[in-house]
Amino acid sequence: MSAPAIAPASTTRTNGTGRTARVAVLGASGYSGHEFVRLALAHPGLEVAVLVSREFAGRPASELLPGVDARVMPLPTPVAPDALPGLLADGVFDTLVACLPHGAWKKLAGDMPTLATDSALVVDLSSDFRDGAHDYVYGLPEAFRESIAGARRIANPGCYPTAATLSLLPALELGWLAGPVTVTALSGVSGAGRSPSLRTSFTELDGGAAFYKVGEVHQHVPEMARNFARLASSEVPVAFAPQLAPMSRGILLTTIAPLDRVVSPAEAHQAYADRFAGEAFVRVLEPGTWPETRLVKSSNRCDVAVTTVHGGRTLLATAAIDNLVKGAAGQAIQNLNIVLGWPEGWGLPVHGNPW
Amino acid sequence: MSAPAIAPASTTRTNGTGRTARVAVLGASGYSGHEFVRLALAHPGLEVAVLVSREFAGRPASELLPGVDARVMPLPTPVAPDALPGLLADGVFDTLVACLPHGAWKKLAGDMPTLATDSALVVDLSSDFRDGAHDYVYGLPEAFRESIAGARRIANPGCYPTAATLSLLPALELGWLAGPVTVTALSGVSGAGRSPSLRTSFTELDGGAAFYKVGEVHQHVPEMARNFARLASSEVPVAFAPQLAPMSRGILLTTIAPLDRVVSPAEAHQAYADRFAGEAFVRVLEPGTWPETRLVKSSNRCDVAVTTVHGGRTLLATAAIDNLVKGAAGQAIQNLNIVLGWPEGWGLPVHGNPW
Amino acid sequence: MSAPAIAPASTTRTNGTGRTARVAVLGASGYSGHEFVRLALAHPGLEVAVLVSREFAGRPASELLPGVDARVMPLPTPVAPDALPGLLADGVFDTLVACLPHGAWKKLAGDMPTLATDSALVVDLSSDFRDGAHDYVYGLPEAFRESIAGARRIANPGCYPTAATLSLLPALELGWLAGPVTVTALSGVSGAGRSPSLRTSFTELDGGAAFYKVGEVHQHVPEMARNFARLASSEVPVAFAPQLAPMSRGILLTTIAPLDRVVSPAEAHQAYADRFAGEAFVRVLEPGTWPETRLVKSSNRCDVAVTTVHGGRTLLATAAIDNLVKGAAGQAIQNLNIVLGWPEGWGLPVHGNPW
Amino acid sequence: MSAPAIAPASTTRTNGTGRTARVAVLGASGYSGHEFVRLALAHPGLEVAVLVSREFAGRPASELLPGVDARVMPLPTPVAPDALPGLLADGVFDTLVACLPHGAWKKLAGDMPTLATDSALVVDLSSDFRDGAHDYVYGLPEAFRESIAGARRIANPGCYPTAATLSLLPALELGWLAGPVTVTALSGVSGAGRSPSLRTSFTELDGGAAFYKVGEVHQHVPEMARNFARLASSEVPVAFAPQLAPMSRGILLTTIAPLDRVVSPAEAHQAYADRFAGEAFVRVLEPGTWPETRLVKSSNRCDVAVTTVHGGRTLLATAAIDNLVKGAAGQAIQNLNIVLGWPEGWGLPVHGNPW
Repeated sequence: MSAPAIAPASTTRTNGTGRTARVAVLGASGYSGHEFVRLALAHPGLEVAVLVSREFAGRPASELLPGVDARVMPLPTPVAPDALPGLLADGVFDTLVACLPHGAWKKLAGDMPTLATDSALVVDLSSDFRDGAHDYVYGLPEAFRESIAGARRIANPGCYPTAATLSLLPALELGWLAGPVTVTALSGVSGAGRSPSLRTSFTELDGGAAFYKVGEVHQHVPEMARNFARLASSEVPVAFAPQLAPMSRGILLTTIAPLDRVVSPAEAHQAYADRFAGEAFVRVLEPGTWPETRLVKSSNRCDVAVTTVHGGRTLLATAAIDNLVKGAAGQAIQNLNIVLGWPEGWGLPVHGNPW
Repeated sequence: MSAPAIAPASTTRTNGTGRTARVAVLGASGYSGHEFVRLALAHPGLEVAVLVSREFAGRPASELLPGVDARVMPLPTPVAPDALPGLLADGVFDTLVACLPHGAWKKLAGDMPTLATDSALVVDLSSDFRDGAHDYVYGLPEAFRESIAGARRIANPGCYPTAATLSLLPALELGWLAGPVTVTALSGVSGAGRSPSLRTSFTELDGGAAFYKVGEVHQHVPEMARNFARLASSEVPVAFAPQLAPMSRGILLTTIAPLDRVVSPAEAHQAYADRFAGEAFVRVLEPGTWPETRLVKSSNRCDVAVTTVHGGRTLLATAAIDNLVKGAAGQAIQNLNIVLGWPEGWGLPVHGNPW
Repeated sequence: MSAPAIAPASTTRTNGTGRTARVAVLGASGYSGHEFVRLALAHPGLEVAVLVSREFAGRPASELLPGVDARVMPLPTPVAPDALPGLLADGVFDTLVACLPHGAWKKLAGDMPTLATDSALVVDLSSDFRDGAHDYVYGLPEAFRESIAGARRIANPGCYPTAATLSLLPALELGWLAGPVTVTALSGVSGAGRSPSLRTSFTELDGGAAFYKVGEVHQHVPEMARNFARLASSEVPVAFAPQLAPMSRGILLTTIAPLDRVVSPAEAHQAYADRFAGEAFVRVLEPGTWPETRLVKSSNRCDVAVTTVHGGRTLLATAAIDNLVKGAAGQAIQNLNIVLGWPEGWGLPVHGNPW
Repeated sequence: MSAPAIAPASTTRTNGTGRTARVAVLGASGYSGHEFVRLALAHPGLEVAVLVSREFAGRPASELLPGVDARVMPLPTPVAPDALPGLLADGVFDTLVACLPHGAWKKLAGDMPTLATDSALVVDLSSDFRDGAHDYVYGLPEAFRESIAGARRIANPGCYPTAATLSLLPALELGWLAGPVTVTALSGVSGAGRSPSLRTSFTELDGGAAFYKVGEVHQHVPEMARNFARLASSEVPVAFAPQLAPMSRGILLTTIAPLDRVVSPAEAHQAYADRFAGEAFVRVLEPGTWPETRLVKSSNRCDVAVTTVHGGRTLLATAAIDNLVKGAAGQAIQNLNIVLGWPEGWGLPVHGNPW
């Protein structure tokens, strides 16, 4: 009995553009790095050329990506960051995607300046350059697509700010808000990264939920405030109550803000439906239906639902994303697609896998 | 080898008061009914005299309470509701605790009027009489202890309203609020009751969180509004964004409200600490520390933390309870202790069991 | 700002064979039916032509498949089973995949005989015809590939028997076993189907594991015994200890059997590695490495590891599958690929998605 | 409004024996240490005199025991191990309970020899002395109660060996086994200890199960073999397939062994029921009923069920325990009760808390 042919969709990837981006993935052993590789393997234009991991350098790629069947999908052996300048000079990769803890890419780019100057394209998933320093463009396509198209360096948004900004975007653009915004949200545990800690140990989290960094202290508060101000063209104070929930993926978020006039629930819904009508990755739910993280699980979609309360004087908007996809790796690919002139949805799941 | 003596704490319960309440538990097969029996078995003054369950009538009590070792703890065989008037007339029970779905005790009390009139004491865990109809007293001790002491009929608060009211109580009593309240909360699945449904099936919930009944439509909104108005002596509009989280027990809740003047985080904390200083079952957490459901799991405690945001113009208060204990069965026992003149903490765990 | 183009992989599916199977999916609201549709949407040769669901008939397909974004992926409105003979006669579908509870397809096929006689191809995921009645061919490709190729009616294997048979296959074929087999296994909850029940409610399962139907009473025992006997060409008694674990997907299984001679762990490993070398969907793990359900999650792969114990006189083999993919919908597609002469791996994920 | 009196059961603990053990708990920050303290706080004869934790030394006890409400239950400030000889000499404690990683108590006892020589009683929860070295008595009461009664040093059994030995005990004592034993088991994650590791991180475990150390390599294999041989009075080879399941607590275990004659399921059940009839903490389930970890959760009970298969030639026994209670801290207290001449069940929950 001879071996059956294996033909996964991703093996014959001719995308018709005659162009492929050869990507070096920094931090491939973390959750967002792993998710980026998983999505890139099925993308028609991305080639995973270099895997970078201090911890796994020199060991088989299968240790780093344990779910990947190495018999079917040969992957490059991980290298340490030191190897990057040489590999870039040799043309092994041209695009750099940094999935590192905050501060690490900034340091690396300082230590090895050619990485940033000579790569054709850099996408940084950390918060290091989200303030726009060093010509990084903030990569939230639904809000700022036109500024992304010509960028060479992209600061990929944080997970909470992605969901929060999309949940408020139409109201901010329409100038509806009359005061400060309060955001409450719960996140799956992968949002805390993959470094082992007591706080993210199974037994510490299973069966319970917990607040952390409540008030105006979470590192995502300035990023949200920056986005809100840019869209509203005025200062918008932000408070935030993040919570850790016993699940691996997903963000479920509420934004609450006073309105400058009475807005009916129907009017709010219509404004949101109109604004997002052309967006592939934002779905506005019908009135009476509310977001669930399972319905966007493993997809690049953000589900949004909105109403008004307190006699129409307070906006109450809700959103759900997969923090590893729309909140990280998927949005990075969406940005790459835009910059590289490819269809924006290439390689990005739009359907959630609820179970 | 002879059998070892078994002496669990609950077998020799002389409480020194010469008084025991013989309780009929209606709905003993549900989660709050089961929790009530579990706590009552270890209570020095409560005797579980009658178990009532339409479904389990006539079957061994061990089917209804599968974790209980029937060799050690003999329990009465469950009976159908029809048997209650006779058992009450015969003096088998004197206290009735109704752990039924909403509407069921109201109907039963209408069909068998002696149950309500001839029982020495009735505690109803449903929402049927929380508006004070038929002389039911609302049993939230930390807010309204004095009105409970002499009551014969008690409407036990809902789980969300318990956490929400305790999280706002000092601010409401002090007259700090300047506008409507928005509450966001997540609940463990046991809060949805024990009747099987697609929505509460394991595979539908595992690994995800979901909003439901967002806005002003959840049945607990009027109960919260009633409590807030009673404490503030003025109308307080309420909006609510409840969420189901993949855990069995626990409520984690945020309340957000505009303040009528600038209040510093320290001032808010101090006011809460002062107000709850004498309360055994409310713990005000130190600044920078926030509630976690695991820390109150299986206990009757409510953990509260408070701050102010937006330059001190918005109150942001948080709370955690175990929805089956402080949010249901434990609070029922706390009310029984008050009415029966026993120490308020009898039989009620104050320490959480986080794992 | 105009709408971005959406181009998910599945919209331009030309498979080069000039042939597409138009599938009617019976029981599309169950877990295996849903998984079949999800996989079929990304398959180059399968068209989901008809969705059949008594419960969802006439309602939007999006209610039945809540994770699917209906804006992107238009799906046929579900119909009741009664509509099938007409749709088949009209050529709307030619292939029937039955994802129904046990007994249901047998009854339907009796009530509407043209369904079985006039469909070009029938795959039944229930246990109704796994004994080979009515010319159904048992569809476990790695064991019985040659008998599948020309089949028109396929009985898709059960989830436990798939994992158990693959874990023992080389040893059975080599005639190594000297006595009866004992299988212990744990399964994710989706294996119990999607009909709500107390047993599969979240709060009843979260944080715990439970045996059920231990001994020789589980419905999969005869199916395992049939497979083992066919491969060993002799009777093989089977005992089984199934367990429900608090997870949605996955089977983790152990088989234990006495050997007819001393076999070293290395010899056992080599025999397994040799036997499965050509199999795309069976991966034999290196010695010292053991299966994990997460590593095959959402993939059609079975991971197997084997050793011998008790001085080489007992075989101890282990396996992991995703019960909804290799244990149900994925294997159905693998069988369709074989029968339709397509590459066996078409549309089937080989990599697991661990998180 | 004055403060309500708080009277948890544990505050007025007069046990009538005029005797209290003042315990030093080593490793109080781990899961079994924490569970020991939690149970000891409600025990009528145990006083938690010293908490020992290198990491938490000098910090408030509430950081080490976050669920404990320090307002109600004052606890001693944790000290480093160095303080122990002085505290022992001063009579602050007389009983030492070591809840440390394997090897740690052995090393400490070597470094500070007075701890072992001058403590009235030592219970070690690690595997260091389970082979009986240094006069440690193996503390599995249901198997070896008489040897425990007069002991001064007790080696508390491992979690898996406790469940495995109880599941086989009657068959071993009756001399029924005709060959080697195979054990398969799944364990909750707390069994792996509280030190953070990638393997026990939430996202790595949620939604999946995994084998580890399969064959004859797990550290509990020699302990099981020792117990089996002692009870059977002959060598019994043991193989073991342990698995990690996505839950915090609980062990669910199967033992499989050939029988030396045909034994019917009914005969096996009766032998087990007879043997365990006098045991408070072993419940033999009725035929057709099987163990569930939830039913013994937070209790010191072991649920056992047994049958025979393969025509009565193979014993198939199952058991469930809470690994932190009967598998660790609860069994330690049971041993203390025996040695101190107290009722064996003092302070030990017999009922499980399933939710």
